[in-house]
Amino acid sequence: MPRHAVLLTDFGLSDPYAGQMKGALLRHCPDTILVDLCHQVEPYNILQAGFFLAASQNHFPEGAVFLSVVDPGVGGNRRIVLLEKYRQYFLAPDNGLLTFLLHKAGASLVRDVTPAWRGRASATFHGRDLFAPLAARILCGTATSELGAEINPHSLVRLPEAEPERTVDGVDAVVLHVDRFGNCLLNLDSEDWETVVFKGKRPALASPHEVPLLPVLTYERLEPGQVGIIKGSQGYLELAMNQDSAAQALDLACGTAVSIRIERR
Amino acid sequence: MPRHAVLLTDFGLSDPYAGQMKGALLRHCPDTILVDLCHQVEPYNILQAGFFLAASQNHFPEGAVFLSVVDPGVGGNRRIVLLEKYRQYFLAPDNGLLTFLLHKAGASLVRDVTPAWRGRASATFHGRDLFAPLAARILCGTATSELGAEINPHSLVRLPEAEPERTVDGVDAVVLHVDRFGNCLLNLDSEDWETVVFKGKRPALASPHEVPLLPVLTYERLEPGQVGIIKGSQGYLELAMNQDSAAQALDLACGTAVSIRIERR
Amino acid sequence: MPRHAVLLTDFGLSDPYAGQMKGALLRHCPDTILVDLCHQVEPYNILQAGFFLAASQNHFPEGAVFLSVVDPGVGGNRRIVLLEKYRQYFLAPDNGLLTFLLHKAGASLVRDVTPAWRGRASATFHGRDLFAPLAARILCGTATSELGAEINPHSLVRLPEAEPERTVDGVDAVVLHVDRFGNCLLNLDSEDWETVVFKGKRPALASPHEVPLLPVLTYERLEPGQVGIIKGSQGYLELAMNQDSAAQALDLACGTAVSIRIERR
Repeated sequence: MPRHAVLLTDFGLSDPYAGQMKGALLRHCPDTILVDLCHQVEPYNILQAGFFLAASQNHFPEGAVFLSVVDPGVGGNRRIVLLEKYRQYFLAPDNGLLTFLLHKAGASLVRDVTPAWRGRASATFHGRDLFAPLAARILCGTATSELGAEINPHSLVRLPEAEPERTVDGVDAVVLHVDRFGNCLLNLDSEDWETVVFKGKRPALASPHEVPLLPVLTYERLEPGQVGIIKGSQGYLELAMNQDSAAQALDLACGTAVSIRIERR
Repeated sequence: MPRHAVLLTDFGLSDPYAGQMKGALLRHCPDTILVDLCHQVEPYNILQAGFFLAASQNHFPEGAVFLSVVDPGVGGNRRIVLLEKYRQYFLAPDNGLLTFLLHKAGASLVRDVTPAWRGRASATFHGRDLFAPLAARILCGTATSELGAEINPHSLVRLPEAEPERTVDGVDAVVLHVDRFGNCLLNLDSEDWETVVFKGKRPALASPHEVPLLPVLTYERLEPGQVGIIKGSQGYLELAMNQDSAAQALDLACGTAVSIRIERR
Repeated sequence: MPRHAVLLTDFGLSDPYAGQMKGALLRHCPDTILVDLCHQVEPYNILQAGFFLAASQNHFPEGAVFLSVVDPGVGGNRRIVLLEKYRQYFLAPDNGLLTFLLHKAGASLVRDVTPAWRGRASATFHGRDLFAPLAARILCGTATSELGAEINPHSLVRLPEAEPERTVDGVDAVVLHVDRFGNCLLNLDSEDWETVVFKGKRPALASPHEVPLLPVLTYERLEPGQVGIIKGSQGYLELAMNQDSAAQALDLACGTAVSIRIERR
């Protein structure tokens, strides 16, 4: 039986909101093991949350129930959906947050689990009042078929900006996240791109700045000032420097569009 | 038997203090399930902590032991008290932190649990050295009557600023908290005030700025630039905007005094 | 059998990294009780991390497994080591992070546990891919002798700046950490120094500013504007003010060198 609840929100850590959501989970299923994936997704940044979820899912146990609540449409008409994939459970608002996960290989079973009792909940905090009780039911053993009918995965909202666009001589991508160390994670799946970048090609950043990119395996290989492109630990390519911030050096932030040019050597 | 320990402090998350308090709890009662309510209460802000506690308590399981440590008088003569209410346990310094909870309906049983062994503890970190062992004793099954004698709830320190003041044409209130999204939570209990605000009246902010307030149920209902007054998820009224910061638009911060004028339509 | 995993990193809380490390622990040992010591060590600040660890260890249960990952050399040749001391387990990169712990009294048993399978892990995130599975093995009952051979504790990297230097009339020390309240923790073990400072001597800060230091037991004893030297809760001396920031008043930051002059009264 699943027992781990994994929490991903834009609630931050200065408010009592994440704590209350945990309380509600434990109130409904007291033995749950709670794990914070991240509560500091940028406010309303669905793309970043979706990336965090897709990059993290495979590191958690089978049976884990993920509650992903970045939900600018809270209280409106958007559905609450449950994705079952990889023997894990993903609860999220139907606003595009599951885009990256749906794109990944593997069978996706999706249910509309918007609860009939939503009218009795607060209108502004569904994370605590709807998502937590729903997760608790799964965690305490309710069959997911009792929570809602299966729906077509293609009916879910998708974020078009999640996909990179191939260009004549490379690719147009987006910075999905700048991490604490200034590494810039791109929407370039490292499995797709490693042959392009790491085998006999010479990549360069073409925009917003013109900078050669050195394909390396570890940060340590980079000289001071040098910018590398790394098949990082998140399953996506990243622009990085050695103990320095690539984001600062290149004026990149979460959401910045970048063009990468790839030349044969 | 209670098993959940809920932690509320102003220790922040950049120091090892919250971690050490958790260690001390587990050292004395290894099976405790720890839950962070919030560690980023503003330093020394007893009013904000008391609000977080009162707004959050009912979302946690029965039997939960709350450790609330915002304690500028640490090492001085203030008592450590235990409030038993709603089948939950609230440990706090006697400095006003329990004001909101004591004001809420329901029987309050209070004990002075200042430990005789306080002299052996560090003088500057009672959260770890006194509160955690006290909580651990409750969590591991010690009867609370063994921890200290009952005292009169009226003997506890209260914060006068917790109460709003009715004026001729409305109410003078205080911003208890500005959340990550810029919503401003007021010391106006939403049960008391909903009839006033939401039924046929026209509220406006009179000070520090003159702004009409639109009573709404969800953020989504507000037009860009419009300021709403919402019966929010915390049980208190809040000033809010849709995906924008009411705090920034209205120059409000934690502790700001506001006047609300209420007119019949 | 050990069950508590205590996490100390410089991963911060805005990335999914700490969460993924937790996931990996639970994936390999699902019943682990996870405790965050701190994830906001300054990026790459091995000295600060080592201090946090040494100051916190004794507050955690016997059998606890500490994962300390501040690891600028990730992917390079540095070893991963396991220190067994005080019936607890300390996993860390061999980069000086264990300096303070090794200096403390008590027998130290050290193993080189760098895994043979490191080649299959990501090159940039050993916290998740090497440290977590190693910790999980200990937590699930594998004998530590199976993880690696004993090595000489003197072979470990040490940080020379961890030690203060006695001068003719006092001591040259370093600020190890500035906490949320502006207290400045020094690399002066309070057991060594309390006789010097607290018994009939008159200490003063000589550099970077000239300020008399009042030895006190609690913050509350200090008048506004007065700077105290306190035998604090962390086992190290700290420069502090009462509800004010000593760091700001004295221009001190993590890593600042300070000179203290000690005069007989």
